[in-house]
Amino acid sequence: MSDKAIKTLILGGARSGKSRHAELLAESWEGPLTFIATAQAHDEEMAERIRRHQERRSDRWETVGAMLDLAQPLRDAATEGAFVLVDCLTLWLTNVLLAERNVETAISELVAAIGDVPGRVVLVSNEVGLGIVPENDLARRFRDVAGETNRRVGAVCDEVVFIAAGLPMTLKSPG
Amino acid sequence: MSDKAIKTLILGGARSGKSRHAELLAESWEGPLTFIATAQAHDEEMAERIRRHQERRSDRWETVGAMLDLAQPLRDAATEGAFVLVDCLTLWLTNVLLAERNVETAISELVAAIGDVPGRVVLVSNEVGLGIVPENDLARRFRDVAGETNRRVGAVCDEVVFIAAGLPMTLKSPG
Amino acid sequence: MSDKAIKTLILGGARSGKSRHAELLAESWEGPLTFIATAQAHDEEMAERIRRHQERRSDRWETVGAMLDLAQPLRDAATEGAFVLVDCLTLWLTNVLLAERNVETAISELVAAIGDVPGRVVLVSNEVGLGIVPENDLARRFRDVAGETNRRVGAVCDEVVFIAAGLPMTLKSPG
Repeated sequence: MSDKAIKTLILGGARSGKSRHAELLAESWEGPLTFIATAQAHDEEMAERIRRHQERRSDRWETVGAMLDLAQPLRDAATEGAFVLVDCLTLWLTNVLLAERNVETAISELVAAIGDVPGRVVLVSNEVGLGIVPENDLARRFRDVAGETNRRVGAVCDEVVFIAAGLPMTLKSPG
Repeated sequence: MSDKAIKTLILGGARSGKSRHAELLAESWEGPLTFIATAQAHDEEMAERIRRHQERRSDRWETVGAMLDLAQPLRDAATEGAFVLVDCLTLWLTNVLLAERNVETAISELVAAIGDVPGRVVLVSNEVGLGIVPENDLARRFRDVAGETNRRVGAVCDEVVFIAAGLPMTLKSPG
Repeated sequence: MSDKAIKTLILGGARSGKSRHAELLAESWEGPLTFIATAQAHDEEMAERIRRHQERRSDRWETVGAMLDLAQPLRDAATEGAFVLVDCLTLWLTNVLLAERNVETAISELVAAIGDVPGRVVLVSNEVGLGIVPENDLARRFRDVAGETNRRVGAVCDEVVFIAAGLPMTLKSPG
């Protein structure tokens, strides 16, 4: 395989089945599988959620943590013939904002990496901009940055799906 | 009619036209119509909303209240040839959580009932997981449980539609 | 052109690419372009956002402000052969609510104007009803009114699209 494999963005709400859908896409893949985890186990609730996600994935997956630097681990893993799942962009953005990193730079580096790598890439992200405008300044800024990230990542991906109630709606189809 | 009638989940946001869409589905039905109401008139705002919904429905409907136990009323009403509208799952979940009932058990019993009954069933539910993660613990737990419920009910239904601006997008089609 | 031009409602979340999509629709239009701006520069954040939007639009656009009275400016601008972009209904509704105007009357006048005018009309609106029910009374009322407005405007439009990650899903197609 000398062509680039397709890149997919999976968008959806809380507990909508985004990660399950992503893992389904990996099932028939014959090459190596890498899971890039952006979650930090800040509290018990999150630790439990990470544990449940790991249990669901088989031994076929190698797991890599990427709390802040996401572009380089993605470049390292998404080589020809490889399948890389990034779950999820929303937590990664939270980490970047809380660490007071330059978020524009971080997004640009991510978008460039997605465009460059030859491997199959699936990115999971939350849609968080469909509720009432939050009163909290940081929440409002996060909501804007998250919308911008989804739009820019969606533009560089070949396929974009929106998940609701565990079911996909196609926003963009490859080819 | 000896086959099971189809089951439909109608998902959408606040005032998106979910209930109207559900009532439209009932218009051409020739058998008995049952409305299973999960709303409690906690305050004036809710009492007024319930009253408006009732006015819109014709005398053809029998109304049954189901604040906490939903599976059994659904089994009782959704007999062969009957049409049952459950409006809505989100309020029912709120009732179950506030009453400190076991929410996993409640959802499992509901999903089993939907799968078993021979009648036509239409369930209305709010999508609440597409905004910013709420700071309030109970709200966050509710958001997760609501997402999980939509996914599990969606899996057992034959048809799932997402309503925005009064218009349906099909997520899952029967047959 | 003696027939009425089509009316389009563009719905979506924060920073989803709604305005960009609306501006794309105008690109191939050969007649006059009017931008009806409903935003008030309450603070620096908003002033900056308005400035960025203006920079993106070319000199081909005439800009009209419509903070509270929207129906009349729309009637004035959307003459035969003209293209009018209203951006956005959500901010306009906020203005109407904060000014304690009669919101039902305002919506009815807007819907009547959209139905009457012969020009091409594109309206941008936020979907805000897909998050957790807000605790704040005004926010809850706003959420309900916004949902109702989207439904009523969607009903009078020929085309309704939902934007996520910069990509359109068609809810209603003309003809």
